[in-house]
Amino acid sequence: MPSAISVITLLTDFGARDYFVASMKGVILNINPQARIVDLSHQVAPQQVEEAAYLLKSSYRYFPDGAVHVAVVDPGVGSARRPLLVTTSRYFFLAPDNGLLSYIYQEELSVEVRQIENKQYRLDSEGATFDGRDLFAPAAAWLTRGQAPGSYGRLIRDYVKLPIQEPAWEGKALVGRIVYVDHFGNLISNVTPLHLKEVQGVTKKSISEVTIRAGGAAIEGLKTSYSEGAKDAPHALINSNGHVEIFVKDGSAAEWLKLGRGERIDIS
Amino acid sequence: MPSAISVITLLTDFGARDYFVASMKGVILNINPQARIVDLSHQVAPQQVEEAAYLLKSSYRYFPDGAVHVAVVDPGVGSARRPLLVTTSRYFFLAPDNGLLSYIYQEELSVEVRQIENKQYRLDSEGATFDGRDLFAPAAAWLTRGQAPGSYGRLIRDYVKLPIQEPAWEGKALVGRIVYVDHFGNLISNVTPLHLKEVQGVTKKSISEVTIRAGGAAIEGLKTSYSEGAKDAPHALINSNGHVEIFVKDGSAAEWLKLGRGERIDIS
Amino acid sequence: MPSAISVITLLTDFGARDYFVASMKGVILNINPQARIVDLSHQVAPQQVEEAAYLLKSSYRYFPDGAVHVAVVDPGVGSARRPLLVTTSRYFFLAPDNGLLSYIYQEELSVEVRQIENKQYRLDSEGATFDGRDLFAPAAAWLTRGQAPGSYGRLIRDYVKLPIQEPAWEGKALVGRIVYVDHFGNLISNVTPLHLKEVQGVTKKSISEVTIRAGGAAIEGLKTSYSEGAKDAPHALINSNGHVEIFVKDGSAAEWLKLGRGERIDIS
Repeated sequence: MPSAISVITLLTDFGARDYFVASMKGVILNINPQARIVDLSHQVAPQQVEEAAYLLKSSYRYFPDGAVHVAVVDPGVGSARRPLLVTTSRYFFLAPDNGLLSYIYQEELSVEVRQIENKQYRLDSEGATFDGRDLFAPAAAWLTRGQAPGSYGRLIRDYVKLPIQEPAWEGKALVGRIVYVDHFGNLISNVTPLHLKEVQGVTKKSISEVTIRAGGAAIEGLKTSYSEGAKDAPHALINSNGHVEIFVKDGSAAEWLKLGRGERIDIS
Repeated sequence: MPSAISVITLLTDFGARDYFVASMKGVILNINPQARIVDLSHQVAPQQVEEAAYLLKSSYRYFPDGAVHVAVVDPGVGSARRPLLVTTSRYFFLAPDNGLLSYIYQEELSVEVRQIENKQYRLDSEGATFDGRDLFAPAAAWLTRGQAPGSYGRLIRDYVKLPIQEPAWEGKALVGRIVYVDHFGNLISNVTPLHLKEVQGVTKKSISEVTIRAGGAAIEGLKTSYSEGAKDAPHALINSNGHVEIFVKDGSAAEWLKLGRGERIDIS
Repeated sequence: MPSAISVITLLTDFGARDYFVASMKGVILNINPQARIVDLSHQVAPQQVEEAAYLLKSSYRYFPDGAVHVAVVDPGVGSARRPLLVTTSRYFFLAPDNGLLSYIYQEELSVEVRQIENKQYRLDSEGATFDGRDLFAPAAAWLTRGQAPGSYGRLIRDYVKLPIQEPAWEGKALVGRIVYVDHFGNLISNVTPLHLKEVQGVTKKSISEVTIRAGGAAIEGLKTSYSEGAKDAPHALINSNGHVEIFVKDGSAAEWLKLGRGERIDIS
């Protein structure tokens, strides 16, 4: 039942205002009018590959088998950056070879990475190439029409991986980083319960007794929901993607602590 | 023909930037790839239940019979707030029990309110529960697959209703409130033609002779379209949802009058 | 195969926050639950007909044959502005008669323009008419159900065309205008390679030797992609829609040059 699997998600830094995203959708529907197109996000900060990588990691696995995830965030657009088609046991991914798929390479057991070379899946255009519209959109649409990944190009091994920062020990503290700030101002770190269990003496029961230091504040323990704890003070919990997250009830932790992406948190 | 009725609308304060809405859509399509998902709005001001309630009231009735309206705006997310499934003669509604569906209770003749208890329709997740993704999205998708409302949980009667402010008389003036400010800056009040007819001496003909006082300005009469009246002055009309609305031609009444949600207007 | 052609695009200045767009989608799905609705953009600057016209021109041709393009940006909403149904060899267009379709009239060889008169395709509403929801949405949905254009109303010839500014010669310089600023801050002009070839002595080879003056800066030559050229300086290229565009690598040309829509560029 091919219509059941023709879901295409789009992740870009193109914004919702211009004609870029709509052009991509037009190209897709022109090739496969049955495709279901879902906006993953178009509000990635311009050219922030790492932010896009985190957004993709946080949502791709909720989609049905066979979904095609298209991610176009690329400071080097129009340059010699290779376009990739990545196949995993459940999904297809299309993105420039700039590290955007780093979490996919890390989290998926079976990954086939191809360079898209077959010009048959491209759109001709005058002027500068708009890869989202002229290359990634048609390549995605043809996948949902059943084109075999092997027909897109040859397998490669030297694809770009971003250095994914893992939390590291400094003395008795586990040092992590803020990897994403959501629109509520919640600060999402790269620390997960797996890392926390390495903190000296932490057991499943005592996991809520950690101390988190960030932006000059010391947060005692972990809550189990956003509704716990007093207002006007930062708290922490394991969020719905399994990451340690700092929040302020009904407020913005980013504003409260003056912290942003890349900054450190210490857990002890 | 089940595919004809599998429309699901989403109303949240999650914004368009993060991975929250996309995750919900993924979960829905994973359960029912035929579902048609429509964004009602994701730009509700964070945790403003009343604003969300007004948005829902203003648009739900335009959707086809059988549509499932999912509304997740909840300051108490993750707490013991009960999730609801509400069935009316034409629609399903899924929302936390915080008053978000107050207008539905008021406007629909036949309303069945259930607490969602059946864990079969939930998604398991590590970390804090993300109700939109783990509870409301799958519950909505299973409805479009034909699951009976009765299987979700038992009927309840003690659900939360917001106090919906009705216009009230103060001497010879009818006092209403601004309930919504749209992105053009139009000020939408809770006053409808039914209320206006109570103003002393107002008939269908003379309805355009009322005086509206708001933010220090006195607006004489009602226009019949936005194109009437001079620029650089506030005017009023009965808007497309049947409410008295104050506008400034090609401008923002909210800026012009320095008024926002909750503030009063007097009609005499 | 009717489902293959039931694509409807929506272009408005309604924003994504309010209930306007969702109401239009509800009306469409109520008439044709099989319609595929694509947001072209809802972030047109309020009532900027020319900006909407450019967005439509830049994306409409990527959609499949039979697509219905609905564009509602109208400072005169609710007035006596005529609603139009325009049929070309591949598409339908629905818009108010205010010049929004000017590029369509210019670029399409065969254009039939009708005034929508048939009240059968309208929705009744109390209060002021919301043309997007009450008139254009149902008219579009009925087209995807196979209603003949001829049944909508009679052909007219006196429809409104915006004066589309073509580049013009001033001495030895070709003077163009900025027609659109995208959300990256790229400045898109109304100059195309066809115009450039008129510049004295320009051949296909030497096209990259032009000098572009804009906002006090002199830009030498054309790049072939955004990745070329130094940062912190404006460059130009022929963009993916075939227009001369000024950009700053990884930055905003609009901010860099303090230029916006309507301002001039000189090419020599």
